[in-house]
Amino acid sequence: MKILIKVKYDGSSLNGSQVQPGLPTVQGELTAAAREVFGFDCDVTGCSRTDSGVHALSYCASISPREDSGRGNWCSVPVGKVPRALNSKLPSSISVCGACSVENSFHPRYDVVSKEYVYLISDSAVRDPFLVCRAWQIGRPLSEDGIVAMSRAGAHFVGRHDFSAFMASGSDVAVTEREITLLSVKRRGDGIIEITVAADGFLYNMVRIIAGTLVAVGRGVISEDEIPSIINSRDRSRAGQTAPPDGLYLSEVKYKEPINWLYE
Amino acid sequence: MKILIKVKYDGSSLNGSQVQPGLPTVQGELTAAAREVFGFDCDVTGCSRTDSGVHALSYCASISPREDSGRGNWCSVPVGKVPRALNSKLPSSISVCGACSVENSFHPRYDVVSKEYVYLISDSAVRDPFLVCRAWQIGRPLSEDGIVAMSRAGAHFVGRHDFSAFMASGSDVAVTEREITLLSVKRRGDGIIEITVAADGFLYNMVRIIAGTLVAVGRGVISEDEIPSIINSRDRSRAGQTAPPDGLYLSEVKYKEPINWLYE
Repeated sequence: MKILIKVKYDGSSLNGSQVQPGLPTVQGELTAAAREVFGFDCDVTGCSRTDSGVHALSYCASISPREDSGRGNWCSVPVGKVPRALNSKLPSSISVCGACSVENSFHPRYDVVSKEYVYLISDSAVRDPFLVCRAWQIGRPLSEDGIVAMSRAGAHFVGRHDFSAFMASGSDVAVTEREITLLSVKRRGDGIIEITVAADGFLYNMVRIIAGTLVAVGRGVISEDEIPSIINSRDRSRAGQTAPPDGLYLSEVKYKEPINWLYE
Repeated sequence: MKILIKVKYDGSSLNGSQVQPGLPTVQGELTAAAREVFGFDCDVTGCSRTDSGVHALSYCASISPREDSGRGNWCSVPVGKVPRALNSKLPSSISVCGACSVENSFHPRYDVVSKEYVYLISDSAVRDPFLVCRAWQIGRPLSEDGIVAMSRAGAHFVGRHDFSAFMASGSDVAVTEREITLLSVKRRGDGIIEITVAADGFLYNMVRIIAGTLVAVGRGVISEDEIPSIINSRDRSRAGQTAPPDGLYLSEVKYKEPINWLYE
């Protein structure tokens, strides 16, 4: 048995999800908290790697005893009580919102069927202290026509495509096709522009390059009709800039079976 | 001539509004930025004192050359361009949203006719990393009946009263009467409970003690009908706890004449 947990984190004070000796990371903090709660070393495996400064509203990770710990029926804490127990040991930047027991064969990364990210943009001319590290503050208003163009440009991304043009140069994954099932752009009531993207998987920096490209469309630097040819070019230099990590939130992770999250 | 500026700040990394040698404060940062922008020492006077950790959506402060600087027609920067000039020198926790020139006789504190504060409460059972230092996370849901009781209790505060029971013990102001013109309690769409209070002035910690008292009403610890007798008692020990600074936002400052804020 493994325990799957759902985690929310403010990435601004964290050096990404992956463990790095001496630096606060999601995996590092969860591993330390699990050791305190269960009393022995645990393996913590995340659903994806997020960069330094990227946030999560819903990140999943599995916890299981480290192989050499020799614990069979290991979880001494009722699963529903695991979130509060971990939260009492975690820094305030990370919060466990639910837990569920899963089979040993379950893998939090390989078993993902789709993920959703939200990217937040503030186009206020005045810098907002409350959005520091939480949105991309582009410093100049986007017109309503610009937002409409971004939304139309977004529709061109939907479907199965080779997204090499939207992958950080230097990445070397074998397969660069992904299927985007949703891409929406809307201005929220609080003035923030929210881009939502769902796909069966993402290439490195893909959402941030899409966000950078959509802002270029909103500014009229790239035309909405150019998007299909940019995708087809597979040429990173034709897409827009990589938007900063500040605005990026992993918002949903879906598995084959729905997870019954417990929080007692 | 003085320049009046409107400022927004995230108080979580600031040691309050009032200057303190060696510590980052609103006044300290504004004074340093004004000196850089104008090239000589300036006096910066705020509209009120806010404690460490308290935020502002709309704080007003005046800037004028320090008396010994001997500058007459001192402002070399067009007033509408002062906000951007200051923002280029300020830390990201503070942002100037507008500026206006006012007479030398104008005083940003004594000329205030009313102020409004917002106090934010999160009653989610799960700690939210994104609300750390930005709301009072009370850790356990309030019932809808509880919110209704808070709202009814709030109505009892409206009017001119001696609010000694809602003043930090140890304060020694001469006049403890204030007129509250608005007190509303509502649950927002995002689940946060927002208390809004407007008055002609506030005693030290008054909004935080009102917030603490209203949460006690929401929990059934204090009855909504007890509020008038608590006010009349003038006894600090009968009111609720002082809520933490994290949830408090100075949201509006009104002067006799409306200010024509410029931001170019």
